[in-house]
Amino acid sequence: MNKGSVWIWYPGDFEIYHHLLLNIRREERNYQWPAFWRLDDCYHNVRFRKQVHCDTPEEMTVYAHGVGHVWVDGKKQALRKPIILSTGIHNIEICVARTDGLPCVYVDGVQSASNSSWEANEYSFEWLPAGCNELYPNKEDDPNIFSFQYAEMLPVSIEKRQEGLLYDYGKETFAALLFENIQAPKDIRIFYGESLEEALDTEHSILIDAVPAGSDKYRCSSRAFRYVFVKGAEIEQFELTALYEYLPLYKKGSFTCSNDEVNRIWDMAEYTLHLNSREFFLDGIKRDRWVWSGDAYQSYFINNYLYFDTDITKRTIIALRGKDPIAKHINTILDYSFYWIMSIHDYYQATKDLDFVSFIYPRMKSMMDYCISLTDEDGFIRGREGDWVFIDWAEIDKTGAVCAEQILFAESLKATWICGDLIGAGETCYLERYNQLKEQIAKFYWDEDKGAYIDSFESGKRNITRHANIFALLWDYADPKQRESIIMNVLSNDAVPKISTPYFKFYELEAMCKIGRLEDVTKQIQDYWGGMLQLGATTFWEEYNPAVTGLDRYEMYGDRYGKSLCHAWGASPIYLLGRYYLGVNQTAAGYDAFIVEPQLGGLEWIKGTVPVNGGTVSVELTQEALEVLADKPGGMVRVNGREYPLQKDIPLRLNMKSSTT
Amino acid sequence: MNKGSVWIWYPGDFEIYHHLLLNIRREERNYQWPAFWRLDDCYHNVRFRKQVHCDTPEEMTVYAHGVGHVWVDGKKQALRKPIILSTGIHNIEICVARTDGLPCVYVDGVQSASNSSWEANEYSFEWLPAGCNELYPNKEDDPNIFSFQYAEMLPVSIEKRQEGLLYDYGKETFAALLFENIQAPKDIRIFYGESLEEALDTEHSILIDAVPAGSDKYRCSSRAFRYVFVKGAEIEQFELTALYEYLPLYKKGSFTCSNDEVNRIWDMAEYTLHLNSREFFLDGIKRDRWVWSGDAYQSYFINNYLYFDTDITKRTIIALRGKDPIAKHINTILDYSFYWIMSIHDYYQATKDLDFVSFIYPRMKSMMDYCISLTDEDGFIRGREGDWVFIDWAEIDKTGAVCAEQILFAESLKATWICGDLIGAGETCYLERYNQLKEQIAKFYWDEDKGAYIDSFESGKRNITRHANIFALLWDYADPKQRESIIMNVLSNDAVPKISTPYFKFYELEAMCKIGRLEDVTKQIQDYWGGMLQLGATTFWEEYNPAVTGLDRYEMYGDRYGKSLCHAWGASPIYLLGRYYLGVNQTAAGYDAFIVEPQLGGLEWIKGTVPVNGGTVSVELTQEALEVLADKPGGMVRVNGREYPLQKDIPLRLNMKSSTT
Repeated sequence: MNKGSVWIWYPGDFEIYHHLLLNIRREERNYQWPAFWRLDDCYHNVRFRKQVHCDTPEEMTVYAHGVGHVWVDGKKQALRKPIILSTGIHNIEICVARTDGLPCVYVDGVQSASNSSWEANEYSFEWLPAGCNELYPNKEDDPNIFSFQYAEMLPVSIEKRQEGLLYDYGKETFAALLFENIQAPKDIRIFYGESLEEALDTEHSILIDAVPAGSDKYRCSSRAFRYVFVKGAEIEQFELTALYEYLPLYKKGSFTCSNDEVNRIWDMAEYTLHLNSREFFLDGIKRDRWVWSGDAYQSYFINNYLYFDTDITKRTIIALRGKDPIAKHINTILDYSFYWIMSIHDYYQATKDLDFVSFIYPRMKSMMDYCISLTDEDGFIRGREGDWVFIDWAEIDKTGAVCAEQILFAESLKATWICGDLIGAGETCYLERYNQLKEQIAKFYWDEDKGAYIDSFESGKRNITRHANIFALLWDYADPKQRESIIMNVLSNDAVPKISTPYFKFYELEAMCKIGRLEDVTKQIQDYWGGMLQLGATTFWEEYNPAVTGLDRYEMYGDRYGKSLCHAWGASPIYLLGRYYLGVNQTAAGYDAFIVEPQLGGLEWIKGTVPVNGGTVSVELTQEALEVLADKPGGMVRVNGREYPLQKDIPLRLNMKSSTT
Repeated sequence: MNKGSVWIWYPGDFEIYHHLLLNIRREERNYQWPAFWRLDDCYHNVRFRKQVHCDTPEEMTVYAHGVGHVWVDGKKQALRKPIILSTGIHNIEICVARTDGLPCVYVDGVQSASNSSWEANEYSFEWLPAGCNELYPNKEDDPNIFSFQYAEMLPVSIEKRQEGLLYDYGKETFAALLFENIQAPKDIRIFYGESLEEALDTEHSILIDAVPAGSDKYRCSSRAFRYVFVKGAEIEQFELTALYEYLPLYKKGSFTCSNDEVNRIWDMAEYTLHLNSREFFLDGIKRDRWVWSGDAYQSYFINNYLYFDTDITKRTIIALRGKDPIAKHINTILDYSFYWIMSIHDYYQATKDLDFVSFIYPRMKSMMDYCISLTDEDGFIRGREGDWVFIDWAEIDKTGAVCAEQILFAESLKATWICGDLIGAGETCYLERYNQLKEQIAKFYWDEDKGAYIDSFESGKRNITRHANIFALLWDYADPKQRESIIMNVLSNDAVPKISTPYFKFYELEAMCKIGRLEDVTKQIQDYWGGMLQLGATTFWEEYNPAVTGLDRYEMYGDRYGKSLCHAWGASPIYLLGRYYLGVNQTAAGYDAFIVEPQLGGLEWIKGTVPVNGGTVSVELTQEALEVLADKPGGMVRVNGREYPLQKDIPLRLNMKSSTT
């Protein structure tokens, strides 16, 4: 009877509510550390409506997490009691309120089944399609609890140490420890470690817990670790189970090649991203476990070459934005507001999902208008006191209006214009401002003598870093002559400080791919990611500097174990290898048209699959031959400047030796 | 050590959170009925800061309802653990988050004691003085639970009926029933009644409950009733205690006179208002127990002549407004947005409380701007589809722009201008718009032929009701000639339909007082309120029509017991008797200057006290003599057109016979 029913809620509120919960979960030794930005909540009083057409009588029962009632054709009825709908048309409205969580509804019925055919309203004038997803299809479900799955994990070793027991689970993981049949005479103290050192350095381990003496059973919160050091009990005094907590995601992208280290890097990148793909795309799973717009922006791209899970991208975009009125930039960071705006257009490009654009556009527009309200007479945006002008951890001259921010601002204006236009709400003011801003950027920041974009102009320093110049290459802010100049004077210029974070390395390596330097990229992947592999990493780190050794490797933010050893942005090789080596990318929204332009990048052979929005392209390239197969129309293979249309389900085989002529 | 500490929270959020809780508590038989407007919530992630100057070292402990930590001079510390502050200056910041309630903080310390000297922030750019009140002075308190008091109540009778037991508590009350030592073989079903009929008519009683079979103890939610009918158990099978739930309020106003019925009316009005004075001023305690801006507006005035409790007025004003962005008019009612705006100026007039005006002004301004955004080319505001243009339950022609709404709009513009001006943020656009609107009102609505304001002009009906004309008299929208005309053609004209609701009777009787018709008012009080008394009412009703008899008296909104028998607006005699009979009113904000102009209104003698913002005026008037005593300077007695300055603490005695000459 409940075919087609799912739990429904006010659209976006599931995401906002779980973002609220997630943002206050950060722990550090003996206190909690709520995020330092405004946290929004779901609406607590909502209603749902549908005009239900019954060809035959049906029984409808309304379940809810919350209190309320059901109006059926103007008469109030109780929740959780069967209601008979006679043949004909019925106007149903369900009112539900809940003060301590997400009010939501499940209608067990046929025509009345709850799903996105219902509308939702928070008592404003506007009714919107109800929010729902595939995670909550049963009436027993509760969307207030995120639908993770759990699997029992065994340690690879248990070692008795002087003061306790050391468990090694063999690799980084995220799990809840469950202590059962406890018979310990005193508190059992638990010290987690992403590294062995952290677990054993009990004065400084970031994540700790304790089982109170006298407990029979104790379940710890789910946390990130590879090692667990348990003090205060013998192994016979409890049974310990580790429950791996994860979101099932289906791997659609794959990559193998002639270089085994690169293969291992790809696999570890996949595992790293998977651990960070939860309610939303996290930055890292140990600390801070928050959602950062700039970090998430990269995860969206990586996801498109791995899971192509559109739900997690949408969830993340909705959560990051929160609700009106806007208090500060997203994550307090100027650039992160822009990545958020840009991500909507990028998401559309990958999915052609107009429903989502329609839903999010009002929030996109108000975010854009907020940024515009902060511009100066030159049309530039600046950080106010209390704004974080981030771009990267680098010696950028951030005085006044910063070039990299203006490029992101311009890209955001363009994205807003396009997305508005897509749903028939396009406002030319955004387009005009985009064009003006591009001109202003060229005028104020391009330094003809230096042949590069300067960081900022107000200080008079005319400092050059790679960042704005990389953006200029990526998003075509440089004409061919300027491009050459940037490549020569910045990208290939060792006097310009190197990019030191994997975060910005994403953009730098992409720029290098764009200008055809794949062999350099292959080398960097091997050096940087391979370097972490060689140190025994089981997931990629927040930051890695080969020059740093010993315990110092784990230090960050002034904390001995402050560094995250499982950081989403470490997974960027997946994107680079899929996008530029397998060479697959959409050329029309939703991959209605897509290009396949594989390159070996110095490898002997590469092989893999790339999801293309409902389809998959498989690519196998050697120095001799290329084979491409797509289960979706619209593909075009490009090799050495020549294009070959790709037919659905028909492999295209090219002799690489002959195709070069 | 905790001298001076109180619980603190983000300002306004205590009110908004308790308003959220209150708005979903409405019950009706077997379902809940959440309010039909958007409900806002407190911020869930907040921080507090103070620069603490310690002359001597002190120990500080931070308690919180929520998770978080304390920064002391840039170092993080845990909550609930003593922190030593050395002699000197310390920068303290406390971060607290709570997802399912109000995050709040209590600092046990000396210089560090938590109170409004701390600032609060929700991670926007603005820091505000922390919110607090006198209800939560102990570290064991929890501001998430409203601080009611409880007193055991005994029934005046317990009667065994055929199917159960009937408890009569002698008068309307609001209490929690507590069943203890239950030994009943089946469910105990409970039926509440404000009237005997409702309690016994178990199919239709609005409030019901049930003690599940097998319970040993059961505490019902607090509810309104006089009678309780208990079915399914014998008296020996349980012990029943009724716990009266109330907010202690100190009665500062009083009134007695030569007419005992009027005295009883005053007392019953006081009890009626007290029952409705809870977290906020409610409309009625049975159904719907919500906060309605128009109802509350009258309670503010009554309160000023009874408790002069400024906290409950502030709480109500804050709760009604909620947060930005504005979704609809307050309570969905156009006029109720205006009463809300006007109430702030009225509150200031009574209290001279600039701190509150400063706090609320941004919300006042955005409410005003919301209304202005809805105006038409004539400068008038209209109800949109989905807006409720209420004014009163009366046959008002509500086509298009309604006169009474425009008068309220104009008064709101004036109030916004004045309040902004008071805090140095006055915007002349409000003043200009006020002046223009007044002219437009005269031009569009004054009908020279009819000598009155018409309801509206668009329909061409040129209909006349009392409502707009009463507003015009109250707020001086009529010149002396027009006044006379309104009095003759509307107020004294029986062809114009009578005011039928006690809600609007408030304004009508006030207008009659203003034009000197106190004897008519006395008669109406005796007829209308006395009529309810004679029917055995123990609190005043939502509505009373002497022509309706029997069970029909309780009917309203199509529900047999739909009418509220304890409705705040029934308490208006307190205001009328204090304001126009005892004759006390402020003539400068905060009663820095006040007038005492007593009138007998046809009574032989009157006697009473009126609170005057930190002081009290007592008045005793007979036909022969007047005695006035104030414990506060600034008073001026006016009798028969002559004025007599009133000295603090010195009784002024006048011979009324001689003073008339």
